[in-house]
Amino acid sequence: MDDETLFTFRPIGILHSPYRQRIDAPHQGTVTEGTASGAAAEATLELADWVDTRALQDLDGFSHLWLIYALHRSEGWRCTVKPPRGGPKRGVLATRAPHRPNPIGLSAVELLAVEGRKLNLRGVDLLNATPILDIKPYVPYADAFPEARAGWIDALDQTTGKLFAPGPRKPREEEPTSD
Amino acid sequence: MDDETLFTFRPIGILHSPYRQRIDAPHQGTVTEGTASGAAAEATLELADWVDTRALQDLDGFSHLWLIYALHRSEGWRCTVKPPRGGPKRGVLATRAPHRPNPIGLSAVELLAVEGRKLNLRGVDLLNATPILDIKPYVPYADAFPEARAGWIDALDQTTGKLFAPGPRKPREEEPTSD
Repeated sequence: MDDETLFTFRPIGILHSPYRQRIDAPHQGTVTEGTASGAAAEATLELADWVDTRALQDLDGFSHLWLIYALHRSEGWRCTVKPPRGGPKRGVLATRAPHRPNPIGLSAVELLAVEGRKLNLRGVDLLNATPILDIKPYVPYADAFPEARAGWIDALDQTTGKLFAPGPRKPREEEPTSD
Repeated sequence: MDDETLFTFRPIGILHSPYRQRIDAPHQGTVTEGTASGAAAEATLELADWVDTRALQDLDGFSHLWLIYALHRSEGWRCTVKPPRGGPKRGVLATRAPHRPNPIGLSAVELLAVEGRKLNLRGVDLLNATPILDIKPYVPYADAFPEARAGWIDALDQTTGKLFAPGPRKPREEEPTSD
């Protein structure tokens, strides 16, 4: 393949979230254990001026959205990472860690309301000021596979008896691993 | 927000699929009605040379993956689009149409096997030669919301008695709408 073709994207919006730094945020938005509030975080997505608000039309009937975003605090990538659940290092593409070849994030969030250029959201694991590249409606027939097997994550959860990633750790020195 | 910050990504791989043009491909990978074979399409994802294969380690235990990719055939965006299910124009961000402000695609696909730098996949709606920007494991606790409400799509499906987007149309002149 032609490795030299690059794709450039301009943020369509910015996310305002209560999580100021990585140690504050849960590893997934569905996990709230250990966060400051202990509840699913609410956040606001503000559409950029260059995107006509008509693009948001009809979005208010969806209970969930996908956010695709730039992991803007990511500082380079590595082949393998040590996940916060424990266990050995894993191939980065078999994790949701931010240290990816392309630092792109994906999260399903709850849509509470659309107010003009603003989306009110709940269940967010994004850091404050995250640049949003795309918003898509969550469509169960294409997106929901509750019986999907999750490899090393299932195996580790069976061992530990937990069913989700750990919450954020207490603030401490920046450390390189993530889920 | 600062609208001038751009994010540039280099493909981590390329997808080899049986769908040569848009009229051949289903509107979602879970829909096979109307495709040439009538079966879920198999495809191969080949990792780019610049990505170490160790990044794929541990991926083989997952039954499903997310592909995030460039909609490389997209020719600009519009605020509203007319979906193939029928009904009026909808805000583009309330659809999965390719004519998005940032032409980024998202598909959940089945992982059949990992063979060196190649992933064998099933249930693919991507066109041949699609540049892949990221691969993520599908993790049900974060990604599966089978009860999510799907706004205008649910409403239209109730009216028509169908539960999914139509399959591809017979080859004909390029037309601008999609789901």
